[in-house]
Amino acid sequence: MEEKEISQAVISRLPRYYRYLRDLKDAGKERISSQELSRIMKVTASQIRQDFNNFGGFGQQGYGYNTKYLYEEIGKILGLDQQYNMVLVGAGNLGQAIVKYLISRQSGFHFTCAFDIDPHLYDQTIAGIPIRPVEDLKSYIDENDVDIVVLTIPKSEARRSAQMLADTKVKAIWNFAHVDLELPPHIQVENVHLQDSLMKLSYNISKSGNS
Amino acid sequence: MEEKEISQAVISRLPRYYRYLRDLKDAGKERISSQELSRIMKVTASQIRQDFNNFGGFGQQGYGYNTKYLYEEIGKILGLDQQYNMVLVGAGNLGQAIVKYLISRQSGFHFTCAFDIDPHLYDQTIAGIPIRPVEDLKSYIDENDVDIVVLTIPKSEARRSAQMLADTKVKAIWNFAHVDLELPPHIQVENVHLQDSLMKLSYNISKSGNS
Repeated sequence: MEEKEISQAVISRLPRYYRYLRDLKDAGKERISSQELSRIMKVTASQIRQDFNNFGGFGQQGYGYNTKYLYEEIGKILGLDQQYNMVLVGAGNLGQAIVKYLISRQSGFHFTCAFDIDPHLYDQTIAGIPIRPVEDLKSYIDENDVDIVVLTIPKSEARRSAQMLADTKVKAIWNFAHVDLELPPHIQVENVHLQDSLMKLSYNISKSGNS
Repeated sequence: MEEKEISQAVISRLPRYYRYLRDLKDAGKERISSQELSRIMKVTASQIRQDFNNFGGFGQQGYGYNTKYLYEEIGKILGLDQQYNMVLVGAGNLGQAIVKYLISRQSGFHFTCAFDIDPHLYDQTIAGIPIRPVEDLKSYIDENDVDIVVLTIPKSEARRSAQMLADTKVKAIWNFAHVDLELPPHIQVENVHLQDSLMKLSYNISKSGNS
């Protein structure tokens, strides 16, 4: 693929295409036109064609897209043909739930270890994954191949962890802490701010006037 | 406040303002200029002023904003001065974690009941909240004041639940299922698609060329 700069807006839409194409493929749909995809996904056909043109187009106008091919190509673009080693920092309720959620649903993302400050957890495992003292995180990363660190810890600790991680070879942080992290550009960050999402919902309820 | 249509892009930014203003207020900062806020939040001062102008401006140019006042006003705009009754549908790992996470962090959002298909859960509670059969959900909503339904169930069941909820007086759905739900316009939907978020991270890792 050419090294063209793709906007984050386009990238944000790719997982949704991937999700719909998987469902279509699984339902035995072999080809789909941008008009049909447009109708199902409730985005304009022009938007779909523009998005796909960022990656060379994927298909011929008038003939439609090959569903399985398109699904697989978008998967490759998303890097889902790669394997990622992950560690969890913060083995509380949310962290444990995320590990268990992903193990059952998403291949390619492998948790190898979890870390926590609570010594009571050190003899426990999460779906077979050991829980170790958070002081061991740095040396674990130095000695093992860790691609993604998942942070499910309070915000002050998340800031400290981010500072420490800045100097490691970690490639990305999946941040559930309710804070924006400062990291060097070689470390990718993706935030899941649950409270922000709930506040947006709250706004939309209030605004709709039936609160 | 005037009934002006505010874009979802502006609304998406409000929780982040709210979060930063809370930290500033808690740190004892009484006033802040848009320039200073701009520097901390890494958005332009012009963007901040434009965003705030949607709500009447909040302060005088050159004098700065009163941090506590601005924090409280944005809270009101977000509807955080309201109380919301919530139920959880899907009392698995993720659902339980979300209940426990919110109980400790977010006042104003009260879980009153959880629902699940697994009979083994019916004699258990989540942080004191009872778990009942999912068949009781409809009658529970008819008989109680339920504002927000949190869906942490597989996508096929989420679709079915959404169809059922369409005819109730529920105001909003906070959807963690990996599917887009079809709902009438009087029901607000906010999605947390964890797998989409992880795919975006995966893309950014691949793209950064260090995968």
